[in-house]
Amino acid sequence: MTPILLNCRGAECSEYTEQVQYVKNPHLESMEEDILYHFNLGTKTHNLPAMFGDIKFVCVGGSANRMRAFAQFMHQELGQPGHVDDIRDICEETDRYSMFKVGPVLSVSHGMGAPSISIMLHELIKLLYHSRCRDVILFRIGTSGGIGLAPGTVVITDKAVDSFFRPQFEQVVLGKVIVRSTELDEGLSKELLQCSTELPDIPTVIANTMCTHDFYEGQGRLDGALCSFSTEEKLEYLRKAHEAGVRNIEMESTVFAAMCRMCNLKAAVICVTLLNRFEGDQISTHHDVLVEYQQRPQGLVAHFIKKRLGLMA
Amino acid sequence: MTPILLNCRGAECSEYTEQVQYVKNPHLESMEEDILYHFNLGTKTHNLPAMFGDIKFVCVGGSANRMRAFAQFMHQELGQPGHVDDIRDICEETDRYSMFKVGPVLSVSHGMGAPSISIMLHELIKLLYHSRCRDVILFRIGTSGGIGLAPGTVVITDKAVDSFFRPQFEQVVLGKVIVRSTELDEGLSKELLQCSTELPDIPTVIANTMCTHDFYEGQGRLDGALCSFSTEEKLEYLRKAHEAGVRNIEMESTVFAAMCRMCNLKAAVICVTLLNRFEGDQISTHHDVLVEYQQRPQGLVAHFIKKRLGLMA
Repeated sequence: MTPILLNCRGAECSEYTEQVQYVKNPHLESMEEDILYHFNLGTKTHNLPAMFGDIKFVCVGGSANRMRAFAQFMHQELGQPGHVDDIRDICEETDRYSMFKVGPVLSVSHGMGAPSISIMLHELIKLLYHSRCRDVILFRIGTSGGIGLAPGTVVITDKAVDSFFRPQFEQVVLGKVIVRSTELDEGLSKELLQCSTELPDIPTVIANTMCTHDFYEGQGRLDGALCSFSTEEKLEYLRKAHEAGVRNIEMESTVFAAMCRMCNLKAAVICVTLLNRFEGDQISTHHDVLVEYQQRPQGLVAHFIKKRLGLMA
Repeated sequence: MTPILLNCRGAECSEYTEQVQYVKNPHLESMEEDILYHFNLGTKTHNLPAMFGDIKFVCVGGSANRMRAFAQFMHQELGQPGHVDDIRDICEETDRYSMFKVGPVLSVSHGMGAPSISIMLHELIKLLYHSRCRDVILFRIGTSGGIGLAPGTVVITDKAVDSFFRPQFEQVVLGKVIVRSTELDEGLSKELLQCSTELPDIPTVIANTMCTHDFYEGQGRLDGALCSFSTEEKLEYLRKAHEAGVRNIEMESTVFAAMCRMCNLKAAVICVTLLNRFEGDQISTHHDVLVEYQQRPQGLVAHFIKKRLGLMA
């Protein structure tokens, strides 16, 4: 990746030349103000470099409660000063997304589905750009349905594939379909897998992740309001996915991978499986067990971050 | 629409024969329990007919705060007993969606984008089915970008169209693309337009609504993290949309229309425009003005419901 020279101004320039550019939009330079509407933040109303300039790790996940819990967990893991209950939601004025900062770690919720995470990522990537962040790594930590794995297994995504098992994301731009690669950083995935071996009780694999735009019909569930296929047809589709190397299904990985790749951001997807879809469709596992499962990707990423920061004993 | 005979059992059957069936899934009949996972409700853990059997109107919208505000507004408008602050979020144990009930009105949030609203609709439609509701009308009330309209104009959707201006929604089922019609109820739209004329200060039109799966590149915005087109190319796309009868752009209407149509639910989409996209991309209008705009679809639907309930003076 070739470093790109930014259009710097005055004194800020000297310390800011060799940075990789995260945004790919020539129009941003000429905007007097940039309002990150869904975060309720802006370049005129907030000093973004002061607020976010030290960010090195961004973790995103669907649920606001879970991303708050992750921030509180990182607060303890990093030995940050102050009380965990004082970590405030930076986006508390809006209910679109939640955002928490703990030292160099930003924890942001993205809702469910590709459109929801894509709005968040556009504004997050602009936030990193306006804040002049560098060397940032992004993680999506989430939940998923497993294919042929014991519930509770963590899947680090090798390739994020679409409903047709293709490693691509189709983005419509001005009424034209643009195909984008969903390749993720292989070295990062391997480093995360290594981390999993250093922790007890986090069964982890690297495998392909299928991203669908629907939870019921799109994932072959028999329990939606609409279902026009048989149990055998469902199982045949899941078997085909399994043959294509898919071991879990979720709803955000392809656009996450595609946008991070386009924007020169190292990224990984780490999702725990809540059930084995060969055995059923409903998530009926006890709440406490699900909570423990959901902590596994958090524990893995926390371990990675602590190692990178040289905080391991 | 021909009434469909339900597979009734025993005493429940006599009062429940001539009902239109909302679900289209033969597998549901044989399920011992149905867990509506993203609502944290279920057929074994909750008495759904007792909780929801009297629902006649369901309003859905992206933001949880806005749907709470709508429930509180309806509480006042319907002269319900008790204090508005006591209206609790029925889904408070989960942060995926929020749900509030005020008499025969249910107010539910759906997050942003087609996948997010589709998960909610699957579970909502099953909720109506399990609760044995009948003659239910669904409204999506939301915000949108306008095309050639003054900000604050309310658009009642005639046709919900995709990024290529086609009145259809493409649903992937087991790796195959299924095309569904997004036709909405014309009589309902006209009745809502009539309501708008009975209220002061709610400029309203019936027009086509474009539904995209992305807020930035997909809607021709120049201010995303990624943008590969010029101002002129953007304006050309918006002009083409305008020629196709599109007057506003949002991110949920096609799947909402398609699912409601498939499930025999009368439905309407009522969105206010926050800006005129011919004039810009950023939502920079003052917060108080935006709040007033967002109340307009709420006021219109409240008026409709009161008329239907015979509560108008």
